[in-house]
Amino acid sequence: MIVAARSRLQGHARRTPLLSSPFLDEMAGRRVFAKAECLQHTGSFKFRGGWSALSGLAPEVRTRGVIAFSSGNHAQGVALAATRHGVPSVIIMPSDAPKLKIENTRAFGAEVVLYDRGTEDRDAIGARLSEERGLTLIRPFDEPLVIAGQATTGLEIAEQAEEEGITTADVLVPCGGGGLSSGIALALEATAPGFTVRPCEPEGFDDTTRSLAAGKIVRNATMTGSICDAIVTPEPGRITFPILQRLAGSGIAVTEEEVLRAMALAFKRLKIVVEPGGAVALAAALFHGAAIEGDAVIAVTSGGNVDTDLFAAALRRFG
Amino acid sequence: MIVAARSRLQGHARRTPLLSSPFLDEMAGRRVFAKAECLQHTGSFKFRGGWSALSGLAPEVRTRGVIAFSSGNHAQGVALAATRHGVPSVIIMPSDAPKLKIENTRAFGAEVVLYDRGTEDRDAIGARLSEERGLTLIRPFDEPLVIAGQATTGLEIAEQAEEEGITTADVLVPCGGGGLSSGIALALEATAPGFTVRPCEPEGFDDTTRSLAAGKIVRNATMTGSICDAIVTPEPGRITFPILQRLAGSGIAVTEEEVLRAMALAFKRLKIVVEPGGAVALAAALFHGAAIEGDAVIAVTSGGNVDTDLFAAALRRFG
Repeated sequence: MIVAARSRLQGHARRTPLLSSPFLDEMAGRRVFAKAECLQHTGSFKFRGGWSALSGLAPEVRTRGVIAFSSGNHAQGVALAATRHGVPSVIIMPSDAPKLKIENTRAFGAEVVLYDRGTEDRDAIGARLSEERGLTLIRPFDEPLVIAGQATTGLEIAEQAEEEGITTADVLVPCGGGGLSSGIALALEATAPGFTVRPCEPEGFDDTTRSLAAGKIVRNATMTGSICDAIVTPEPGRITFPILQRLAGSGIAVTEEEVLRAMALAFKRLKIVVEPGGAVALAAALFHGAAIEGDAVIAVTSGGNVDTDLFAAALRRFG
Repeated sequence: MIVAARSRLQGHARRTPLLSSPFLDEMAGRRVFAKAECLQHTGSFKFRGGWSALSGLAPEVRTRGVIAFSSGNHAQGVALAATRHGVPSVIIMPSDAPKLKIENTRAFGAEVVLYDRGTEDRDAIGARLSEERGLTLIRPFDEPLVIAGQATTGLEIAEQAEEEGITTADVLVPCGGGGLSSGIALALEATAPGFTVRPCEPEGFDDTTRSLAAGKIVRNATMTGSICDAIVTPEPGRITFPILQRLAGSGIAVTEEEVLRAMALAFKRLKIVVEPGGAVALAAALFHGAAIEGDAVIAVTSGGNVDTDLFAAALRRFG
């Protein structure tokens, strides 16, 4: 499925670069590489999964359109993938989602349906629209076609690491529902057996790290209060978690200050824009070296959709 | 020479991505692509020229080391290229150069020799050191090996544009001494005859634009007062200018406000960090559409070594 997804993504998704800087190597005490998925279309890896899902549908199904629930990167990835397939997309977003993300999702061609988190049932809205229009639901992570799309990141990492002469490394991946982590883990299992995926999360929202340690799915105590909004989910996915249990190493949780420092260092040393949720793996690579083995580490910087004010604040504090 | 340089750069310089955003396309009224050389090693295209020059020297010459005059990106490019060749480099920098650039040049492995712009003669210092130690001078642009290195950017543009289905386009290039512009023009002459290089400069420092219009080399009235310090030179080069006369279209001059807007848009829409001098071509693509022909334009974003404060200020004003 991953190889098939890659073939469908060919010429549509970007092969993002693997970046590095001698300054970061010195800081971390090992070679540090960043897989810059913030440079992917729509500013995050989510375009891969969106494209994989859209292109994997039967044409007569796809043509009726797709629907997704998302307040962020998945919304934009599905919207652009649908528009480029010439089919309609409906994205159901909370009315208090960041204005910019609503605007972007519309600009990528989606019909945005807003709902009130307090009084309306988004699943009921989604079910009604799906039935009326024959739309196909694209889940953000518990969906094999989506996981296969995110997994193409892993195929590229394996090739690019080989070009750099790296045969063993921890591959640190920002983890929300686990679509990207589990996809990369599957891709590396087949192509680069010396590599181990390690899910990375913000402290206090480390459901996957704790679930892996507990050997069963445990939930986050809260869903609010993290700057890493893009990767905060209630708990690991039903499809993604068993994959991570089988293939991933232990998770790593980082602080908000480490995230902001990593964003400032990515600005200064790699010249890329990384959002908080996209910077947790780089933060782990730079500031949790004791938890990492080997003389090279690969961190996925998974998205760059950050508000200007927050980014400027990170630069002011740590730039 | 360009093909040979490319072969020497293989596996050492990065093949930087060609980025785009539907938002920028809509703003410009045509497809806009950014060749992201800010993601090159040392944060600018100058590493290509530095590597080309170092790797092109005879081993017995190279082993004695190299010397360069620079307060910025050329310094860093030569320093890292020398260090990775295992040979010494001496970079002569004005003592009032930005502290960060001095520190970076040292960190990339160079011996930095500071001189006082008011009282000391840098050429005399350079000549003395070269003679004492047998160092080879690496000029920033009027040097065929350096031009051939920068030209590899053009080979990549030709390939990447073909993948995007573009056969004719203006290729906008930030222009100081003209090493990058003339190199890309030579590369495209051979590989993509439908493409025209257009040098881009800040208003008031548009010596190349005016020289092309006048049919002879004319100088800038002043060397100070531009935020685009990386591309301010007294006049076009003696080797580069005749190449541009033969191959380039007319130049485009942009305002400082347009440069800062382009930096903010590159942050928001492309997720890359671009320095002022590196943003002039993108500014021309976005804000000088009337001067551009065709339905696609390629802008080289040539460097990303920008001070945190200046970048944050650009975001505050235009983000």
